[in-house]
Amino acid sequence: MSDLLTLESVRSGGKAALARALARIEKAPDDTDVVDLLSEAYRSPVAHVAGMTGPPGVGKSTLMNGLIHGWRSRGLTVACIAVDPSSRRSKGALLGDRTRLATDPEDQGVFVRSMAARDRLGGLAGLTVQAMVVMRALFDIVLVETVGVGQSETDVADVADTVVLCVQPGSGDSLQFMKAGIAEIPHIIAVTKADMGAVADRARADVVGALSLSDAHDGWDVPVLLLSAEKRHGLDDLIDAVDRHRGFLAEDGRLARARHAQASDWLIDAVRERFGRDGVRRAGYLGLDGEDTPFRRLSEVTRYLSPA
Amino acid sequence: MSDLLTLESVRSGGKAALARALARIEKAPDDTDVVDLLSEAYRSPVAHVAGMTGPPGVGKSTLMNGLIHGWRSRGLTVACIAVDPSSRRSKGALLGDRTRLATDPEDQGVFVRSMAARDRLGGLAGLTVQAMVVMRALFDIVLVETVGVGQSETDVADVADTVVLCVQPGSGDSLQFMKAGIAEIPHIIAVTKADMGAVADRARADVVGALSLSDAHDGWDVPVLLLSAEKRHGLDDLIDAVDRHRGFLAEDGRLARARHAQASDWLIDAVRERFGRDGVRRAGYLGLDGEDTPFRRLSEVTRYLSPA
Repeated sequence: MSDLLTLESVRSGGKAALARALARIEKAPDDTDVVDLLSEAYRSPVAHVAGMTGPPGVGKSTLMNGLIHGWRSRGLTVACIAVDPSSRRSKGALLGDRTRLATDPEDQGVFVRSMAARDRLGGLAGLTVQAMVVMRALFDIVLVETVGVGQSETDVADVADTVVLCVQPGSGDSLQFMKAGIAEIPHIIAVTKADMGAVADRARADVVGALSLSDAHDGWDVPVLLLSAEKRHGLDDLIDAVDRHRGFLAEDGRLARARHAQASDWLIDAVRERFGRDGVRRAGYLGLDGEDTPFRRLSEVTRYLSPA
Repeated sequence: MSDLLTLESVRSGGKAALARALARIEKAPDDTDVVDLLSEAYRSPVAHVAGMTGPPGVGKSTLMNGLIHGWRSRGLTVACIAVDPSSRRSKGALLGDRTRLATDPEDQGVFVRSMAARDRLGGLAGLTVQAMVVMRALFDIVLVETVGVGQSETDVADVADTVVLCVQPGSGDSLQFMKAGIAEIPHIIAVTKADMGAVADRARADVVGALSLSDAHDGWDVPVLLLSAEKRHGLDDLIDAVDRHRGFLAEDGRLARARHAQASDWLIDAVRERFGRDGVRRAGYLGLDGEDTPFRRLSEVTRYLSPA
């Protein structure tokens, strides 16, 4: 078994092999072969990772369908992770039918995976980062979707290179989101349901106004796009905006720095989830240096902190 | 100092003494006198605890102002905790100006406290439960407000006896919330901005329809109210609904059971926050029996789990 779990074997095995690898990661995230696979994938990034968030009902599923088809028609392969909000009490994915992504199961260039956010201690689904890292080594685009207000922008920023926030005209969202999320301003804002006309225009103007008060991204001007996913209006603009942000990150080592910060944050979160605030304190230095991968470091720290 | 920190001293010292006690709890939550105060307050509940949640922009602040004044005019004392959504990265309360509660600072019968939700590991602000427990022993009503979608209903259900969810007409919230939060159906749903007319009526009908598919509260029919906080329309209905739910909980030991479950959940969460998943496993039995209070139990478990 174990010799099968390499990045090359997953790559050559297609979607079925990827699904098996993800199942193995879920079942035994600490096993050596899993840690090795994750470390290998972590060191071989290919994809740009786009994250999409926004409240329920804003039209994310339709938009994601449009994006996936848009990227596919440009010849790019796409992997998609849809994180279901779930209940600590019910423990399960509540919205099994939420992600109605109309993808062709025969198309090896599209892979869709739903993950239940396990509990609030996990933030994003416990294995979202691991799944993203593997997909990032295998596809051209990884698209991660979360649902929510406020916290979800932070969550998706933990895994995505480019964060797209969807807001809906007339819901009061446009201004309030900016206010609530001011420290985690997304890289792109999509005002959905542009077919609402004047209301959508006003929402866009509100967002642009709120953004003008901040300078969160140090040289990146946050585009505010009007979209109508149903009419397929604005999807190309959104794809172009993601591309431009990718180009922006490629300059001056921004992407490498951002991904290193994400990996470092993930390591600390993972140690905290396993061993609590007390464990983070006892672990001492939790940085990532040189050839470290967060998955290998977590193994080391786990061995160090586990009572003999 | 220490002999001042009793429930009686806080009660007789008025709002200033309460503010000092909360500061002391925040500074030294594990000190013996703090644990003693919390345990005493835990065993002397007076207030009914109402929780209010909903997305930003739905009109919660206006509604809370109306409720506070409504309760005060009925001769009840009210303590209010407003939990600010905050950022893990910025660490602070982002919406310092969010809770514009127009209360009279001279009125000893109203106490308002804003708390920043520290980080996502803390769920609700780390000390929300402690503050609620002290206030619950001193006031007739405790009102806890959180902001958000999805997770926030779960959060507020961790501290409140009666959960009120505010939804806004025309935002798509009404149906999506019901779908997303199906395991944590609130006890009361307030459709705000009833002045929107037909849109509000439709939102109410949507919510009623969605509710008809579930039977979450075992004998409690979830009222769906139309409110216009600005026009002060429907506030009495909301106060009456909270009262009716209080009466419902008083029957058959429901309130005691619900509060015991909350306290047990809090204890497990607190152990997990300090010592992680690994600590919860090592702690073994984490139940609350007889005269146990969750605060005393946390002290015991902390001593047991802390490396010597």
